[in-house]
Amino acid sequence: METEKSTDEIGFGTKNYTSNTRYLNPDGSFNIQRKGKHFWENFDGYHLLITMPTGKFLSVVIFGYVVINTLFAMMYMAIGVEHFGNLKPTTWFNDFMQLFFFSAQTFTTVGYGHLYPKGNLAGLVATVEAALGLMGFALATGILYARFSRPQSLFLFSRNILISPYKEGNALMFRLTNPKKNELIEAEVQVVLSMVDESTGRRFFRPLDLELKKINFLALTWTVVHPLNDESPLHLFSMEDYQRVDAEFLIFIKAIDDTYEQMVHSRHSYTFADLVPNAKFKPMVPRANGKGKIMLNIHEIHEYDPIG
Amino acid sequence: METEKSTDEIGFGTKNYTSNTRYLNPDGSFNIQRKGKHFWENFDGYHLLITMPTGKFLSVVIFGYVVINTLFAMMYMAIGVEHFGNLKPTTWFNDFMQLFFFSAQTFTTVGYGHLYPKGNLAGLVATVEAALGLMGFALATGILYARFSRPQSLFLFSRNILISPYKEGNALMFRLTNPKKNELIEAEVQVVLSMVDESTGRRFFRPLDLELKKINFLALTWTVVHPLNDESPLHLFSMEDYQRVDAEFLIFIKAIDDTYEQMVHSRHSYTFADLVPNAKFKPMVPRANGKGKIMLNIHEIHEYDPIG
Amino acid sequence: METEKSTDEIGFGTKNYTSNTRYLNPDGSFNIQRKGKHFWENFDGYHLLITMPTGKFLSVVIFGYVVINTLFAMMYMAIGVEHFGNLKPTTWFNDFMQLFFFSAQTFTTVGYGHLYPKGNLAGLVATVEAALGLMGFALATGILYARFSRPQSLFLFSRNILISPYKEGNALMFRLTNPKKNELIEAEVQVVLSMVDESTGRRFFRPLDLELKKINFLALTWTVVHPLNDESPLHLFSMEDYQRVDAEFLIFIKAIDDTYEQMVHSRHSYTFADLVPNAKFKPMVPRANGKGKIMLNIHEIHEYDPIG
Amino acid sequence: METEKSTDEIGFGTKNYTSNTRYLNPDGSFNIQRKGKHFWENFDGYHLLITMPTGKFLSVVIFGYVVINTLFAMMYMAIGVEHFGNLKPTTWFNDFMQLFFFSAQTFTTVGYGHLYPKGNLAGLVATVEAALGLMGFALATGILYARFSRPQSLFLFSRNILISPYKEGNALMFRLTNPKKNELIEAEVQVVLSMVDESTGRRFFRPLDLELKKINFLALTWTVVHPLNDESPLHLFSMEDYQRVDAEFLIFIKAIDDTYEQMVHSRHSYTFADLVPNAKFKPMVPRANGKGKIMLNIHEIHEYDPIG
Repeated sequence: METEKSTDEIGFGTKNYTSNTRYLNPDGSFNIQRKGKHFWENFDGYHLLITMPTGKFLSVVIFGYVVINTLFAMMYMAIGVEHFGNLKPTTWFNDFMQLFFFSAQTFTTVGYGHLYPKGNLAGLVATVEAALGLMGFALATGILYARFSRPQSLFLFSRNILISPYKEGNALMFRLTNPKKNELIEAEVQVVLSMVDESTGRRFFRPLDLELKKINFLALTWTVVHPLNDESPLHLFSMEDYQRVDAEFLIFIKAIDDTYEQMVHSRHSYTFADLVPNAKFKPMVPRANGKGKIMLNIHEIHEYDPIG
Repeated sequence: METEKSTDEIGFGTKNYTSNTRYLNPDGSFNIQRKGKHFWENFDGYHLLITMPTGKFLSVVIFGYVVINTLFAMMYMAIGVEHFGNLKPTTWFNDFMQLFFFSAQTFTTVGYGHLYPKGNLAGLVATVEAALGLMGFALATGILYARFSRPQSLFLFSRNILISPYKEGNALMFRLTNPKKNELIEAEVQVVLSMVDESTGRRFFRPLDLELKKINFLALTWTVVHPLNDESPLHLFSMEDYQRVDAEFLIFIKAIDDTYEQMVHSRHSYTFADLVPNAKFKPMVPRANGKGKIMLNIHEIHEYDPIG
Repeated sequence: METEKSTDEIGFGTKNYTSNTRYLNPDGSFNIQRKGKHFWENFDGYHLLITMPTGKFLSVVIFGYVVINTLFAMMYMAIGVEHFGNLKPTTWFNDFMQLFFFSAQTFTTVGYGHLYPKGNLAGLVATVEAALGLMGFALATGILYARFSRPQSLFLFSRNILISPYKEGNALMFRLTNPKKNELIEAEVQVVLSMVDESTGRRFFRPLDLELKKINFLALTWTVVHPLNDESPLHLFSMEDYQRVDAEFLIFIKAIDDTYEQMVHSRHSYTFADLVPNAKFKPMVPRANGKGKIMLNIHEIHEYDPIG
Repeated sequence: METEKSTDEIGFGTKNYTSNTRYLNPDGSFNIQRKGKHFWENFDGYHLLITMPTGKFLSVVIFGYVVINTLFAMMYMAIGVEHFGNLKPTTWFNDFMQLFFFSAQTFTTVGYGHLYPKGNLAGLVATVEAALGLMGFALATGILYARFSRPQSLFLFSRNILISPYKEGNALMFRLTNPKKNELIEAEVQVVLSMVDESTGRRFFRPLDLELKKINFLALTWTVVHPLNDESPLHLFSMEDYQRVDAEFLIFIKAIDDTYEQMVHSRHSYTFADLVPNAKFKPMVPRANGKGKIMLNIHEIHEYDPIG
């Protein structure tokens, strides 16, 4: 019952999930696909264009630019080459290309004018295309800028989650830092354990108590600690136990990026394969560099020492 | 007194409302029109342009584009066709159309230049129009982008609200999910009952206790539960009771869209017609699909089974 | 001491203010001017351009457009009219005007091309001007859009603040509503009393207890109530008392505009002149209009009835 | 243990820092450099362009503009001057410059058209350049606008932090104000002491209790007070003690800028050199100016009087 409540608080149910599927990918995305009857129910053009890889986004933009100019060039061909001033007809292909370039010059509003529309129909279509071009480029560049200004991969997590000595017992520990030049403040973390309940065969989810949930700023590094005391559902677990229940640690972190005072959220996941028993993180020693700055080598975040 | 307080907390009064009018439309908009003495008091151009249907918005843009070019074409006609280089006067209508297209080429800054202003007055008006065009298109495309990037219809609610067995008694239950590809986190829900007080004949509003008000993320589905125990104002209500008091359930939900870390709010409403007694939601079984993803068919959210 | 603390919490000190100056203007702006030694210390161009009246903003834009084109026209004159293709020199003024229009066509990137730069110097200056134009118009239209999309005057307050019967005693009451078509949710209000302490002759500030500080949404109207019980600093005050201490009521309100999920803050102020004793607000009766909508006449918000 | 916890809450560790390095620069930036193995790990183009000084940003933009036009001019040269209408070849340099200007006219979409591309290859490259130009200027002006609209240096701190009489003992006091014309509301401050623990030789961090942590708005000035009572880690410290432990006071402040309802954060730091014992801030007397406004001379914020 306590467990079930915790589960609901996370946002997964306790239904018959197969126990060997990961719920959160290492990059923090949910390993879930939502499907409706119709394509449009799940479609969100803005979200898609913002989150697709850069290469794909550029392909979409270039493809769209070519398609639009091709369509308008075909319309101009249908209107007739004689309705374009200075256009000297040669082959069909050359005429088409000239009108394709005229279309592009209209769509981008560059409008050299060595070709120009004559007559009302050509004038009308060009008038429409110029307006469409301004709108279309505004959308494309708006999305381009949104992609560019979007905060990305702001946290660097230690590769492993360790079982380290802590006070009189042990604790689960992982570290994180901000590798970028911006500052993150008011950082807050939550760790959720996902494991199979052996009595029911069902996977459940449960938040883990942390020694500290919130820090004022993430200037150097932060070691997040879950004490394995008798209040922990993992108290006295052996490595075999972790494996048998297929433990997965879901990390949720939020902070404020103070460049633009924007809240940022991130997620991370550790599975059994990332768990290292009897180990301690090496202290990361910030050093004053030559110019009086305190320097931190962020790659030391992964380093740990085994314990005798 | 408790009731009155709750009412105020919601934001409706307890005045003599007609009891057979819905307060919240199914799409979550308030069924309320605020009127002042003058049109401008209630007018908010930005809000109007952002929220109007896409078809209407495009009509406004096209209409505005035609009107502006018509006005400038008339000004250019008044200045005189002889003040435009390369313009060979023919009929009045053709001259007007040529200047209409010249205006559009100036307003969009495409500026082919096969026509061009001669003399100071024509030059001045064209100078003004080009600047106006840049401003106008910036506003139009800004609004277009704002419309495009605005999160919409982020929640899918079950068609019905059920009376289902819960612990030793019953509970009101409905389900919701996020049909889109973005992730919603820190979701929080509030349910308000609106019903007629039979002693006063007045409609009042009252928040209902929920088993759980907040979840960490809405990855799969969320079943919201109001236990019909003795603390509930609906304890032991029969279907006839619900109908007689004209019960309406107002749902308020907020969450953070983590694509852009933006808070989103949504509203929904169930009336008596949506209430189903003695029924249970069918469990939605997420399945691992071929590619190792957990797949959820969002349309199963509406499905329920009758009991006994 | 309690008083002094409250004062600090508000953000005014308790220093020797003249007692007959208003602190908050009726439109919610602070009646305060901060001055430094140098102009630039207090200067914030963005804030200035965003908040100045529309007429002034347009004047700034037009003035800037004229100044920039005049400067470039003078540069082009200095380079020499012979460096511009198709320009047939006539009088100095006409040449200047032609180059002024050429400058505007370059700055707006309309670029008809009936005039064009010849030679490297003219080409270079035009190259610079076109880039400047794109940047300049982007700034101007960005600010124009920011002004347009900025939420404004979102709350309508009752003209008066009343002393009305409340429970066994009296209460201060004022009403507010949202006259616009957008919805405001999670509205929260704070009322601060500013009055002269007769023993010290100094003005102090103190928050007043409210019957209700927060409502879920501002769909209709909200009557804010400060009970004049024995915990109130205004308990048993006569109208003469209010006048002698020069009472001013500072209202701070915040809410979320759900069109764009943006937090909005507003301020309002009532002075002694707005205070009406022995009066009661007329109930505002929302009526179902012909189309099944609940209609509210927002101007009834000011109406009250005298008592006995 | 209490100390260690506090340390974690701040976000610095307790490792072997050299004790004579400042952690927070006076302008509020962290004196920390994070380094990875590869340049890209720490690179964030958007953050860099937003935060670099204006002169450097303009240099980047101008340099980029020149480089792009040079590259395209070289491509056009390679295609051949005979593929550009109206271009009369003279010297190599003059041809190059003409094509450089043609490139700029295409990239800015000014497109005079006295030169124009002939043939498919020249047409294609110009088509690409015009589209690139629209995208490039949109990014550059987006960043320019973001820089312009970004709130900057919103707080003015008193030059010194004083030890002043307070109640029966002493207190640390500094003052701050908002020198700009915008209003800051809901301001919240936190003061963290950084000093060397003489028993371990290590630097630690600890939040200091304040008489008041939050004010409703920062209309005039705010004197922040840390009472040096027996709960303070600095209780009974002499000036020699402050110097020996190399005390640094880290100030964190946040508020809402109500022009755009945006949260703003700022940081400041005082070191031993800024500490003045036995002194009191001069009261800042706001005066009603001629126009009925309350006027505040913000430079008086630095002024203090020695005591006895």
